[in-house]
Amino acid sequence: MEYLSNDKLVIVGAAGMIGSNMAQTALMMKLTPNICLYDTYAPGLEGVAEELRQCAFEGANITATSDVAEAFKDAKYIVTSGGAARKAGMTREDLLKGNAQIAEQLGKDIKQYAPDVKHVVVIFNPADITGLITLLYSGLKPNQVSTLAALDSTRLRNELAKYFKVPADEIQMPRTYGGHGEQMAVFASTCTVAGQPLSQIIGTKALPEQEWTAMKQRVIQGGKNIIDLRGRSSFQSPAYLSIEMIAAAMGGKPFTWPVGTYVNNGEYNHIMMAMETTVDANGVTVKPVQGTPLEHKELDQSYHHLCTLRDEVISLGIMPPIHDWSKINPNL
Amino acid sequence: MEYLSNDKLVIVGAAGMIGSNMAQTALMMKLTPNICLYDTYAPGLEGVAEELRQCAFEGANITATSDVAEAFKDAKYIVTSGGAARKAGMTREDLLKGNAQIAEQLGKDIKQYAPDVKHVVVIFNPADITGLITLLYSGLKPNQVSTLAALDSTRLRNELAKYFKVPADEIQMPRTYGGHGEQMAVFASTCTVAGQPLSQIIGTKALPEQEWTAMKQRVIQGGKNIIDLRGRSSFQSPAYLSIEMIAAAMGGKPFTWPVGTYVNNGEYNHIMMAMETTVDANGVTVKPVQGTPLEHKELDQSYHHLCTLRDEVISLGIMPPIHDWSKINPNL
Repeated sequence: MEYLSNDKLVIVGAAGMIGSNMAQTALMMKLTPNICLYDTYAPGLEGVAEELRQCAFEGANITATSDVAEAFKDAKYIVTSGGAARKAGMTREDLLKGNAQIAEQLGKDIKQYAPDVKHVVVIFNPADITGLITLLYSGLKPNQVSTLAALDSTRLRNELAKYFKVPADEIQMPRTYGGHGEQMAVFASTCTVAGQPLSQIIGTKALPEQEWTAMKQRVIQGGKNIIDLRGRSSFQSPAYLSIEMIAAAMGGKPFTWPVGTYVNNGEYNHIMMAMETTVDANGVTVKPVQGTPLEHKELDQSYHHLCTLRDEVISLGIMPPIHDWSKINPNL
Repeated sequence: MEYLSNDKLVIVGAAGMIGSNMAQTALMMKLTPNICLYDTYAPGLEGVAEELRQCAFEGANITATSDVAEAFKDAKYIVTSGGAARKAGMTREDLLKGNAQIAEQLGKDIKQYAPDVKHVVVIFNPADITGLITLLYSGLKPNQVSTLAALDSTRLRNELAKYFKVPADEIQMPRTYGGHGEQMAVFASTCTVAGQPLSQIIGTKALPEQEWTAMKQRVIQGGKNIIDLRGRSSFQSPAYLSIEMIAAAMGGKPFTWPVGTYVNNGEYNHIMMAMETTVDANGVTVKPVQGTPLEHKELDQSYHHLCTLRDEVISLGIMPPIHDWSKINPNL
């Protein structure tokens, strides 16, 4: 079995649980033999590199470095989980500020060291915001930067499959758009359960309104639930899904879930959020979101929440006011 | 892409780092859609199952249970990392005894609940011994139980590739046989480096004897090195390699590394240890080990060390004396 490409793929944050899983996943998917692991934590990085070399993936050329210039040199694809985790005593704003600054530096590093990069996937939280900042400072085009947004939809799929006791594949087009978690907009109207429109099931005996509300709550709390159960943050699913995204951007198997992407369409402006998209070798293409008026209203609310977060980052001085973005990135 | 088989594959110890990686790896390799996760630690198990469901592997049917009877029902393949880790204050003998007892119960559970299992891969330490105990109590045939032994050889390959600064694929047939770690027997005579026999390089300026000795020491300490670097035991490489083993036993891609297997050939008797093998849908077939007289002497020493460990387990009363084994398992 051949590799999909020989292009250099860089995993940022490769010493961590998500990053190390990303690297293994990319090697198993045979995306490229040329995988470069980057992390500022050198011992852990070397440990991950050694483990992966000891897997003996055929043809793999696994490099590892804590020097960003070396890591990004000739990089064609970058996937990054390299944010900070929320630590005891940190406020939400501390986390936002810290990861926003990391995203700013990431964008600048991409611009300086990886000007020919084709696609970047950003997954550290809040990903809609860190992805937006990365896009701004990297100077890349909007179709070249995407963020992980699929997990809410795959969690919805899982909850529906469990509730109706059907195989998960019988749940078609489960969709959440907009922001992540509390602010996501659930689009029941897109979804079918064993061929039947979910919208027609909600509010019936098969799925009473309050059960549906409880289910949406479980989707929102999906990440917290993993922490409660495993005693650690979810790492396998974000790693796997983000590598599926970069695989699609590398010209591999199409990615069939919502993707966080830059939106500036008159209705939603200067924002990064989960939309219906296609991802292929041309990057991300946004498709129209189909839904009921109520669902679109929820998406509006989700959008406004993301605007508030974005404006908070602007007020922190990490991003300039929107009218100045094009000075940094003419593509915006 | 279709699954290789529909046979039920059980991952034992699935709540752990190795087990959860095994499950993800097996799903990514598309070995079978029917993966059952088993662990006595129910919350962690559920967390892993949820993460994997949230990956949305196409066609996957992921079940999870802490009931061994349910887990093993109709199981055709089992991979187990479900041993105990060495904890503070435990002696080596405590660990041996604890994991030997776990292996005894595992074997009995297989016999009772999974009589039609085709192949079992055992990887919890000391794997040569826990695999032997599992084989004894399961009543399976020797070709149906194997243990993870490849890591010493893949570590040797990695050290050679780094030392000679050549791609790892240029290191052909790096081999260690017999026991694991300190007691492994390194067979330099099987190996070539960029086409040149390693035996002809050792002792020259290209690889002085003392450098070769240091390299073997790094291979022996390979697992400890990962702990030092990552702050946790190696989990990605053992998980990946053991799933490659079961993949071969399921009729998939051939496994090209040494495998721990039952040996009773007149020269080495009533023991499980790393040998040259083929693994395919017929299970493990032992092939002759080729080496120099000195290498065979090292293998003899490794064998004798394993006999001592085995006899220690017999003296603990966990296995009966060898002459009584056939009463428990007529295949031995």
